Amino acid sequence: MSSSILVVGSVAFDTVETPFGRAEKVLGGSASFFAVAASFFVPVSLVGIVGRDFGEKELAAFRNRPIDLDGLERSDGETFHWQGKYSYDLNARETVCTDLNVFESFKPRIPEKYRRSSHVFLGNIDPVLQRDVLDQVHAPEIVACDTMNFWITGKLDELRKTLARVQVLLINDAEARQLSGEWNLVKAARAIRAMGPKVLVVKKGEHGVVMFTGDSFAAPAYPLEEVFDPTGAGDTFAGGFLGYLAAARGLDETVLRRAVIMGSTLASFCVEAFSLDRILRLTRTEIDARYRLFKSLTDFEAL
Amino acid sequence: MSSSILVVGSVAFDTVETPFGRAEKVLGGSASFFAVAASFFVPVSLVGIVGRDFGEKELAAFRNRPIDLDGLERSDGETFHWQGKYSYDLNARETVCTDLNVFESFKPRIPEKYRRSSHVFLGNIDPVLQRDVLDQVHAPEIVACDTMNFWITGKLDELRKTLARVQVLLINDAEARQLSGEWNLVKAARAIRAMGPKVLVVKKGEHGVVMFTGDSFAAPAYPLEEVFDPTGAGDTFAGGFLGYLAAARGLDETVLRRAVIMGSTLASFCVEAFSLDRILRLTRTEIDARYRLFKSLTDFEAL
Repeated sequence: MSSSILVVGSVAFDTVETPFGRAEKVLGGSASFFAVAASFFVPVSLVGIVGRDFGEKELAAFRNRPIDLDGLERSDGETFHWQGKYSYDLNARETVCTDLNVFESFKPRIPEKYRRSSHVFLGNIDPVLQRDVLDQVHAPEIVACDTMNFWITGKLDELRKTLARVQVLLINDAEARQLSGEWNLVKAARAIRAMGPKVLVVKKGEHGVVMFTGDSFAAPAYPLEEVFDPTGAGDTFAGGFLGYLAAARGLDETVLRRAVIMGSTLASFCVEAFSLDRILRLTRTEIDARYRLFKSLTDFEAL
Repeated sequence: MSSSILVVGSVAFDTVETPFGRAEKVLGGSASFFAVAASFFVPVSLVGIVGRDFGEKELAAFRNRPIDLDGLERSDGETFHWQGKYSYDLNARETVCTDLNVFESFKPRIPEKYRRSSHVFLGNIDPVLQRDVLDQVHAPEIVACDTMNFWITGKLDELRKTLARVQVLLINDAEARQLSGEWNLVKAARAIRAMGPKVLVVKKGEHGVVMFTGDSFAAPAYPLEEVFDPTGAGDTFAGGFLGYLAAARGLDETVLRRAVIMGSTLASFCVEAFSLDRILRLTRTEIDARYRLFKSLTDFEAL
């Protein structure tokens, strides 16, 4: 059977203010960024929920790509809306408002045709719902997962039950520290890997990524001259990472490391524009060229 | 003529408090860390100043190494004393006190026999004094330099005159941003390289190093499980970096990148213990082994 990814998560409108401009109610949500990034590598099936205000214009972003939207539920009400404002240096962001709207009552229903997906990405939703998704699918090869401080604080027991069923966890450094109760990332990684995920990918934004698999792998972020809007970079990383893994169909160290660089490559494009604007007009040639730039950015010779 | 490094900077007593313990008036100072790290590669000549309280016990650290101390001035008064306290996560430090003591009236006098050193490292002192040093030496192959926010704020014009005579600048990311007035590191690097130094090495602590030479090179810090005391890590990096450069006698990209990894290697040992304790009992075998670990930490394959 050929590879495909089932992604479950948020599809949203983002209103974003950066030092360089403002974007009003543009397409966002973790599943949106993830799906577009992953679709460069394998077919993606998206399960999420939107409101009546989510129209043809937004859906157009996913068309002409191997993204199946039959699992995108349309509900009465408004689409999840997140509004944020970045500091002058893009290093801090303030959430102005989070209107969950239809997302508040999201109960993922996995269409029958998605249930044999080879790979599953559980976006950042209630860990109970994440397990509901796992109960609906048939023996995926790899389950990857995201989470956030809200669930670590509020539903740690449920989250641990989910993590026990996950092979790959992708979180940021603050979340890794909070989840493990360890400041030191090496100790944090050991504690988290003991909870279930054998692969822990720690995203550090402009400082790159560290992956713990027993072995350790560190990759920088690409030093861009123009970072326009960091929104969605982490989800885009996850999409590039799992997309590459699914296409390569393996979980050995060589493939995992290439997947980290592929995730970093996709994320480096994401931040060049608002919303999904840059990754929607990205070509595979551009992706491969920047992957090679990562090689030249990090390469050094033995003594 | 064989390579050697002249280092001018502080030799001090440090009183350091970390979450793991306290060290009282132990050997510190940027020139001390630099000299010991660099001495693994080439002979080092140290120019600095200490007081009457700096005795045989402290000097013993430098003995049995190719470190010439004839330029270490002994003055009436007390040795420079810095006292600092680290936060629980080692990520922030508070200076409890800085007693410059004899260092306040330091006027570097370069002994005749040091004046033909192939490499010069200008530690973090008044940029006017840094130029005084350059006026006393004969055509070094490479001049490398450190500075800090105090001089960037207070003596920018003098600092710029010094930078015009420097090939390599090693500073941290906050200093690079302050010196250039640019938040974005790529833009900051372009602005700083236009001031003189063709090689800019930006130290980011636990997030590693980025080097700008026209080309860009990023290296992570080694993910250690036990970071005991970060004091001196930046100076130890500089010593390993310039020591390797001086021994390799080149400034091409291959040599520079190896030098960054060598600096990172030495720094990764420095933080494992208080003061110079760990680097003083370091062996070349251990250094080479950790250099190889950096290779396995960062290596990935082309697509």
